[in-house]
Amino acid sequence: MELITKTIASIAPVKQSFLDSAQKRLDSLTKPQGSLGLLEDIAKKIVAITENEQPRLENKVIVTMAGDHGVVVEGVSAFPQEVTPQMVYNFVSGGAAINVLARHVGADVKVVDMGVNTDFDTSLAIINKKVAYGTKNFTEGPAMSKDEAVQSIERGIEVVYELKQNGLDIVGTGDMGIGNTTPSSAIAAVFLNCPVEQVTGRGTGIDDDALKNKIRVIEKGISVNSPDRDDPLDVLAKVGGFEIGGIAGVVLGAASLKIPVMVDGLISAAGAYIAFKLCPMVKDYIFAAHKSVEIGQSKIIKDMGLEPILDFDMRLGEGTGAALSMGIVDAATKILNDMATFGDAGVSGRDH
Amino acid sequence: MELITKTIASIAPVKQSFLDSAQKRLDSLTKPQGSLGLLEDIAKKIVAITENEQPRLENKVIVTMAGDHGVVVEGVSAFPQEVTPQMVYNFVSGGAAINVLARHVGADVKVVDMGVNTDFDTSLAIINKKVAYGTKNFTEGPAMSKDEAVQSIERGIEVVYELKQNGLDIVGTGDMGIGNTTPSSAIAAVFLNCPVEQVTGRGTGIDDDALKNKIRVIEKGISVNSPDRDDPLDVLAKVGGFEIGGIAGVVLGAASLKIPVMVDGLISAAGAYIAFKLCPMVKDYIFAAHKSVEIGQSKIIKDMGLEPILDFDMRLGEGTGAALSMGIVDAATKILNDMATFGDAGVSGRDH
Repeated sequence: MELITKTIASIAPVKQSFLDSAQKRLDSLTKPQGSLGLLEDIAKKIVAITENEQPRLENKVIVTMAGDHGVVVEGVSAFPQEVTPQMVYNFVSGGAAINVLARHVGADVKVVDMGVNTDFDTSLAIINKKVAYGTKNFTEGPAMSKDEAVQSIERGIEVVYELKQNGLDIVGTGDMGIGNTTPSSAIAAVFLNCPVEQVTGRGTGIDDDALKNKIRVIEKGISVNSPDRDDPLDVLAKVGGFEIGGIAGVVLGAASLKIPVMVDGLISAAGAYIAFKLCPMVKDYIFAAHKSVEIGQSKIIKDMGLEPILDFDMRLGEGTGAALSMGIVDAATKILNDMATFGDAGVSGRDH
Repeated sequence: MELITKTIASIAPVKQSFLDSAQKRLDSLTKPQGSLGLLEDIAKKIVAITENEQPRLENKVIVTMAGDHGVVVEGVSAFPQEVTPQMVYNFVSGGAAINVLARHVGADVKVVDMGVNTDFDTSLAIINKKVAYGTKNFTEGPAMSKDEAVQSIERGIEVVYELKQNGLDIVGTGDMGIGNTTPSSAIAAVFLNCPVEQVTGRGTGIDDDALKNKIRVIEKGISVNSPDRDDPLDVLAKVGGFEIGGIAGVVLGAASLKIPVMVDGLISAAGAYIAFKLCPMVKDYIFAAHKSVEIGQSKIIKDMGLEPILDFDMRLGEGTGAALSMGIVDAATKILNDMATFGDAGVSGRDH
């Protein structure tokens, strides 16, 4: 718990003075003021986060955290649990969507085993932060112990600290775990204090009957465990997942190191939500990468006071939305650095 | 007129068979079917346009077309006319927003003088397709002759044909021309047969009074000239602009060569609209890059049956939205080429 406490203690809101100086620079560039819309807002936020008036996002990483979920025995997913490690191998081989999209934006993919129900060969490029071999079925009791919840977050914080040692200018969150929209929707329902059906979607693509079952399973998990919505660690322990805790740790770690963090879809939003409930100031460091098809995700990011950058009807996870959107954030940052000013270019200002 | 006629004759709708084969490939990749949303739709459209099941978008170009507008004497813009050539120099020097964003996505910027009110040094990297030294004030008669309208489109077609000789896999449209939201909104009002105020915005940032004046100026231009909405060349001649005609030519040329074309904001949409009215099949080859702040733009793209990719509150033009969005289209195309299939990766399929 000490690492969580220390990390939260080192998180501060961004400073208005950096937002103001970034605005001043943007207004000096050869374009009508404000004409780049969201790109300008992004650029200002990057300046404020990094406390650097001309930041460069050279070292980009997508952290894809994997974990298994005991609740899959309740038939909540269209895919079998063995797909979790199979997809981890796919990430390591470079053949998954996240690999393609991360390469496209010049980001590395770091795969983290937070709690997959298998042992990976240690020679593979997988960061081992395994807390356990998957969570327990939360319809029968807590998904994990309180101690494991703390561990999952602290290992996520460690991942960011370790990546920072080799240079890290921006980080994106991603997830892999068959069944993990179920705990994510449960977390959303608990914190939002809303009916489960309002935050539960089809995940990888279940049909109407399976969706009804999934909603019942989440309702049962919440009623069996009675998570305390004022205690984020209790919520994570009772209805969460190891990769969700890991993502919460990545968000906390990034905020404490003044590194912008791109939060992906529903599972990443659920992880960020745990971090936000522990320390609301993290939202100054978060970009909501995209609006997911999963209905719980947009409710979470709205509740954190964030707006999604992209809206592409995506629902894959892995960090795919975070990667795509990182390309946009990178572009916005280049605007700040690489455009000529009216003075440089000898371009006349407004008439009136 | 012969080049326009010949170009239109060579444009055909995309073939369903290519859409189907692209769908089949997408469904074999290691992700839940359809989970990449819009990226999958984009990938299918690229396959259908190029008639290539594994296309690569290596050679990317943004064509930024510049022209001046006689109507600026009516006080429709916040900036003086001298800014048109000043910004052309800025494009050539690489300091404008379009240069930064094009570089970001690996695209070249080609600057075309379609009708700027100055003579550029011929040693500069500016493609000279000048039709005249700016249009005439359309509140007093046609902006240009019918012959000049034909020329502007044909020179736009030529630009694409010339670029194709050095390899061209995707092209984006862009514009520069102080005052050019005025003719663009006029074109929208004529084709949509709607009140001018419903398609007219603040351009580079005029105030309420100037916006009222701009609307009156456009209304006057339409009433003085009575453009025939069933004759796109008449509309272009009476209330258009040279860069708008050039963009229409780029769209026609790209469609005839089976090259995808990213259409930028209001001015580009107006150019694409002229092309669409001449040959509705061009829409199969167009991506609406983004939704502009300019209200006329979304009405135009909707009328062409297109949906914008990005929605970033941008209103700069130059091709900035086209460039950003080209990065997304490139990513979508890489998904098709670079992801592993379920078979390749040994990943299990759905349970149910």
